[in-house]
Amino acid sequence: MEKRKLRGGMVGGGSGSWIGAVHRMATTIDGQADIVAGVFSSDPVKSKRFAEELYLDPARAYTDYIEMAKKEGALPAKERIDFISIVTPNVYHFDIAKTFLEAGFNVICDKPMTCSLAEAKELKSIVAKSGKVFALTHTYTGYPMVKQAHHIVHQGLLGKIIKVVAEYRQEWVARLLESDGSSFYVWRVDPEKSGVSCCIGDIGIHAENLVRYITGLEIEELCADLSCFVPRNPLDNDGSILLHYKGGARGVLHVSQVAAGEENGLSIQIYGTKQGLSWNQESPNYLVCKTLDGYSTTYSKGSRGSRILCDEARNACRLPLGHPEGFIEAFANIYLEAFRVMRAQLADQPLLTSDYPTVDDGVIGMSFIETVVASATSDEKWVKMLYE
Amino acid sequence: MEKRKLRGGMVGGGSGSWIGAVHRMATTIDGQADIVAGVFSSDPVKSKRFAEELYLDPARAYTDYIEMAKKEGALPAKERIDFISIVTPNVYHFDIAKTFLEAGFNVICDKPMTCSLAEAKELKSIVAKSGKVFALTHTYTGYPMVKQAHHIVHQGLLGKIIKVVAEYRQEWVARLLESDGSSFYVWRVDPEKSGVSCCIGDIGIHAENLVRYITGLEIEELCADLSCFVPRNPLDNDGSILLHYKGGARGVLHVSQVAAGEENGLSIQIYGTKQGLSWNQESPNYLVCKTLDGYSTTYSKGSRGSRILCDEARNACRLPLGHPEGFIEAFANIYLEAFRVMRAQLADQPLLTSDYPTVDDGVIGMSFIETVVASATSDEKWVKMLYE
Amino acid sequence: MEKRKLRGGMVGGGSGSWIGAVHRMATTIDGQADIVAGVFSSDPVKSKRFAEELYLDPARAYTDYIEMAKKEGALPAKERIDFISIVTPNVYHFDIAKTFLEAGFNVICDKPMTCSLAEAKELKSIVAKSGKVFALTHTYTGYPMVKQAHHIVHQGLLGKIIKVVAEYRQEWVARLLESDGSSFYVWRVDPEKSGVSCCIGDIGIHAENLVRYITGLEIEELCADLSCFVPRNPLDNDGSILLHYKGGARGVLHVSQVAAGEENGLSIQIYGTKQGLSWNQESPNYLVCKTLDGYSTTYSKGSRGSRILCDEARNACRLPLGHPEGFIEAFANIYLEAFRVMRAQLADQPLLTSDYPTVDDGVIGMSFIETVVASATSDEKWVKMLYE
Amino acid sequence: MEKRKLRGGMVGGGSGSWIGAVHRMATTIDGQADIVAGVFSSDPVKSKRFAEELYLDPARAYTDYIEMAKKEGALPAKERIDFISIVTPNVYHFDIAKTFLEAGFNVICDKPMTCSLAEAKELKSIVAKSGKVFALTHTYTGYPMVKQAHHIVHQGLLGKIIKVVAEYRQEWVARLLESDGSSFYVWRVDPEKSGVSCCIGDIGIHAENLVRYITGLEIEELCADLSCFVPRNPLDNDGSILLHYKGGARGVLHVSQVAAGEENGLSIQIYGTKQGLSWNQESPNYLVCKTLDGYSTTYSKGSRGSRILCDEARNACRLPLGHPEGFIEAFANIYLEAFRVMRAQLADQPLLTSDYPTVDDGVIGMSFIETVVASATSDEKWVKMLYE
Repeated sequence: MEKRKLRGGMVGGGSGSWIGAVHRMATTIDGQADIVAGVFSSDPVKSKRFAEELYLDPARAYTDYIEMAKKEGALPAKERIDFISIVTPNVYHFDIAKTFLEAGFNVICDKPMTCSLAEAKELKSIVAKSGKVFALTHTYTGYPMVKQAHHIVHQGLLGKIIKVVAEYRQEWVARLLESDGSSFYVWRVDPEKSGVSCCIGDIGIHAENLVRYITGLEIEELCADLSCFVPRNPLDNDGSILLHYKGGARGVLHVSQVAAGEENGLSIQIYGTKQGLSWNQESPNYLVCKTLDGYSTTYSKGSRGSRILCDEARNACRLPLGHPEGFIEAFANIYLEAFRVMRAQLADQPLLTSDYPTVDDGVIGMSFIETVVASATSDEKWVKMLYE
Repeated sequence: MEKRKLRGGMVGGGSGSWIGAVHRMATTIDGQADIVAGVFSSDPVKSKRFAEELYLDPARAYTDYIEMAKKEGALPAKERIDFISIVTPNVYHFDIAKTFLEAGFNVICDKPMTCSLAEAKELKSIVAKSGKVFALTHTYTGYPMVKQAHHIVHQGLLGKIIKVVAEYRQEWVARLLESDGSSFYVWRVDPEKSGVSCCIGDIGIHAENLVRYITGLEIEELCADLSCFVPRNPLDNDGSILLHYKGGARGVLHVSQVAAGEENGLSIQIYGTKQGLSWNQESPNYLVCKTLDGYSTTYSKGSRGSRILCDEARNACRLPLGHPEGFIEAFANIYLEAFRVMRAQLADQPLLTSDYPTVDDGVIGMSFIETVVASATSDEKWVKMLYE
Repeated sequence: MEKRKLRGGMVGGGSGSWIGAVHRMATTIDGQADIVAGVFSSDPVKSKRFAEELYLDPARAYTDYIEMAKKEGALPAKERIDFISIVTPNVYHFDIAKTFLEAGFNVICDKPMTCSLAEAKELKSIVAKSGKVFALTHTYTGYPMVKQAHHIVHQGLLGKIIKVVAEYRQEWVARLLESDGSSFYVWRVDPEKSGVSCCIGDIGIHAENLVRYITGLEIEELCADLSCFVPRNPLDNDGSILLHYKGGARGVLHVSQVAAGEENGLSIQIYGTKQGLSWNQESPNYLVCKTLDGYSTTYSKGSRGSRILCDEARNACRLPLGHPEGFIEAFANIYLEAFRVMRAQLADQPLLTSDYPTVDDGVIGMSFIETVVASATSDEKWVKMLYE
Repeated sequence: MEKRKLRGGMVGGGSGSWIGAVHRMATTIDGQADIVAGVFSSDPVKSKRFAEELYLDPARAYTDYIEMAKKEGALPAKERIDFISIVTPNVYHFDIAKTFLEAGFNVICDKPMTCSLAEAKELKSIVAKSGKVFALTHTYTGYPMVKQAHHIVHQGLLGKIIKVVAEYRQEWVARLLESDGSSFYVWRVDPEKSGVSCCIGDIGIHAENLVRYITGLEIEELCADLSCFVPRNPLDNDGSILLHYKGGARGVLHVSQVAAGEENGLSIQIYGTKQGLSWNQESPNYLVCKTLDGYSTTYSKGSRGSRILCDEARNACRLPLGHPEGFIEAFANIYLEAFRVMRAQLADQPLLTSDYPTVDDGVIGMSFIETVVASATSDEKWVKMLYE
């Protein structure tokens, strides 16, 4: 392809959406792409005003995503967007993704992928048919030290994995609750917009995805307890799950959105027959391996300085040792991998490998949500994972 | 009573028993008591040799605990031991405790209290009948910052408690396993000596006790998954439990003895509607309270220096701020409280309050073990706690 | 001004310069500016090749900075760059800054500002005459929690400040040394390119700047010890300094580039009569205030979630509580403040306040370097700070 | 010798002295010795009342130390004390030590050893003449991980040491100040009782001793700045020192007793050409070694579990991995080593090696204090260490 930046569009992510800003920063931070078009609100006036704040060409601030897909599709190839980022409430993901994929655009979609497993499976076949890139922003797999963890596990340094503990604790639902006594409205707690679970759909699937990315473990069956601690709130905001993985490993995965004082407390501990490993999202630049011999080793991220990191981890760093990198950079790593594949397709040189969450991760995520909800309402102790 | 040190005896805890040494250090560290008699091994020769190392009067190094109870009972009051510490494998606790209580001695007993709930209940009535002190060494409630946590919860500073996470992770079974390929023998993994569970009996009950001490929460029902990761080992060494507490709080309690790299990783996180609280045994002198407002407060232990600790916490410290205290001191705090009650009884001035784990804690602990084992082998999702 | 992105140019920062990439990321991450022109190497071929990698218009990849200043100055106002980023070895800063300021461009310059105090003072009058924005990238003052520290100190919460400890430890010189036995060549260790000091010019001035930003303290006199632990290396790589601040506070500032295992270890502890405060660049999203009462408070950064941060700190965050932000974001905060002033000037509405390091900071920084070097070679114990 | 506990006496350390209690706990915790005699106050009534609280034989609660030395010396060998612990204000150390050494008793003395270097040297010759054990309680060298640090340095794992940073920060003087506005009275701040320096005598010498114990480095010359931040207080409470060690290493040692929020903040960082090492007294059970390769290793203390600790460190532990040990246990390790030598002497089998701070450490400590004070009042930049 010619030497040029990629052109991105966005649906959703307008005024007041912090994650919308993250998608834009992830798009532009590395100088590989720009945002050139978008629909940023269901209210066209707000959408256009927001486009102005982004210094977009007003002609490419659209009224709705259907118009956007049509008009962008009609532009000459050298102006047309290369990809779309979907940053709307969950309920719209499927339709938007379908529309743009079928119109021939690559798609980067926020999680959870859809509102149901059925939709997820349908989307999978749409992606396959389209031949386009579909990336799901499971942010946490973009962190360099998560890639190092994956490397360590797959090198066999932990031995056989026998136990996994994954935790994801936040407080934001509690904070909202405390503000106004429970009658608040946020789309994530509304089943019409969010799907069948709040805490599993919003954060539980991140934890599941992180375990799977690092270890490759697949869930065989699980036993879940979901709770809602907010009066008149229809969806869960706390969940604890026992897990049986295929091959015999055991797991505990627990999440909460009402854990006072917890900010974005995603952490994982993995125990093998030889070593243990732990990583914590709030201190993401370090990874700890714990031996059976009375000492632990802490690895630091760094584009330079480390002589021990695997290539995948080192390449995911932008800065030398000791210069903190964070959430935005991890997010951008997912975009960079998706960009790499888009550029390869533009150059007609498809890649053999890539490292971003795909539609398959989305299907497993939706399967996980539905299995957990099924278990939570079941009297049976163990419920098999609904892989299909 | 006259001004004198108390006199203690010990059954078990001989050569090679580190916890035996802890009981002795806890006895003597504060200058309140001495060890003057004991049986330190089932082998009388070893027992006497060990007594010599402790500089005991050889006449008070006994052949077995029955002889000891009889002969000590026959000594004049001003020579006779005041209390006995039981530091044997679990299977002997009941008989030894019964023997000494019925002979009129106070008892300090290592946990788990007995090998079964039935024994535990019987012991409870023996204690009641005897009128003697019976203290169970649930070490962790002796830490100053655990007492501060109790205070904070009971002052209502967390609001209503909604979620508890308790973890206790060790690696020693994995280390043994790794040493000799699985055929090792340690009494804790032998059901004949240890009871129906290894990981719950050894460490799970500590975690349960810690939750209950701090929060007062009682388990209504639970759902447990127990695993054994050691070939040919008859007892569990890993367990994960979902908990429904009375009053609506939810909990997760998970323990492991095969968690590579974990040393003595007992920690607890408690979430209320207003604040969260967390404490970690491996960094015991600090307690963290986390607000919904974007900051946390770390309390430090100290006999001097702090102007914020409750009296119970401050009095449980021997040193000013910044001078680390540890496991032995926490253990000794349980002994000190038991000594305080023994001295009050000797002075015929029984105390209104005391703060050490009692036979009631032992009954609940045994109930917990049996309920967990029942749940682990049940197809029912929830099993009611067997309080009686 | 019209609604548009600002246009930036860069001198230096080409292939192999990680800090060049940081300047570019800081320019583009917030969607406020683009890089559109530059000279990226003293070798025109390399420079143009690098411009291509940045997807720049080849016509704006210049041969040298003099040509660049001239040709950009000749472009119509609506195409011309608004500012230039200087990312070359120190020795070139002065000439480049002078050239662009006198040609009417705003300047963002890496530190140290110049190679001598004399140059620094001359640059100060050039900036004054130009009326343009001159920002110096003392990165660390861009961190939200450094702004919170400034706020806390200036609210008087620490009482009167009596003691400051500032440390900045790295290992990179040691790592280079260890690689090739001392004969390495890096421009920072070459006095022709770097100035009279390596460790003070590279990192010591960051520490001095950080202390001054947070506390406002000015150095009255100092006593320095500089060392070089690398054979045949002409400049220092380790330094320790005792400080007397105006008003009576005392300080210690020590830096090293040969501290094995230290990555980018900049930290500061400030002690007042009422409280102490500590911040560590490697864990930048937290700030600890330590009371005289036996507890400490840890503040977390967050655009949302915290109800306790000052506006300056909150506004310097892009993400809610618990979502780590790092070095790039701090760097970008300095750019954002400079952009804010540039836009105000374009709109002819100069701002009353701004929050980025200025040419005055650069003069003090150069004064600090020269005073430290003077002290290190003096027999006098105390050397007055050379403010002019 | 016969199998028996050693018998100790104490001078000082009575009611209100927390460090007195530490000496007693260190004496008794390991079952190797008892306190059987003492003078606990200059007021005989208070002294006897305190002896009663310790359950001592009233006949051995003496009126003053001269009487005590005489009467204990007159007791039959099998009753007489084996050693004396000196826990008085500094000013009395010399006379008491001299008296008991010359009367044939072993001595364990709190630090600083004396009030002047001249006294220290005289005491050294008295000790030599006496042939008795003289141990100085530089507590921190009793910690297992300090012994491990010593081992690591002496194995050469750090390479050649080039830089040392030692810090000791407390707040207690600030807390007293804040309580009553500066007119407080504590003996440590009174030159009549404490000597020529408060902060160096009380804590600076601990830091110096720790550096020397771990590294073996000897100070060649130093440059000190001492300050007093308390109105009308005659002695310093804050000090910062630049150090030149023999052989070329550089150091910074800074201490404060007015550092708000610091509890007992003694820490040390040592940098060699190959690795760095750091230890912090407030988290004493861990030791961190930092490589030039982008990772660090954290060693844990433990009598069991670790397969990597040196024998000296392992033997200094009473508990397995993960069971915290603290200040009392470290203190007791110094007593244990002194006891070991006393027992060897009693058995007429003098030991080849021992590991406790001796009168030589006391002489160097006093030399350090006097050199620092000399430097602080000198105009010369560097003052040679007054080794004699």
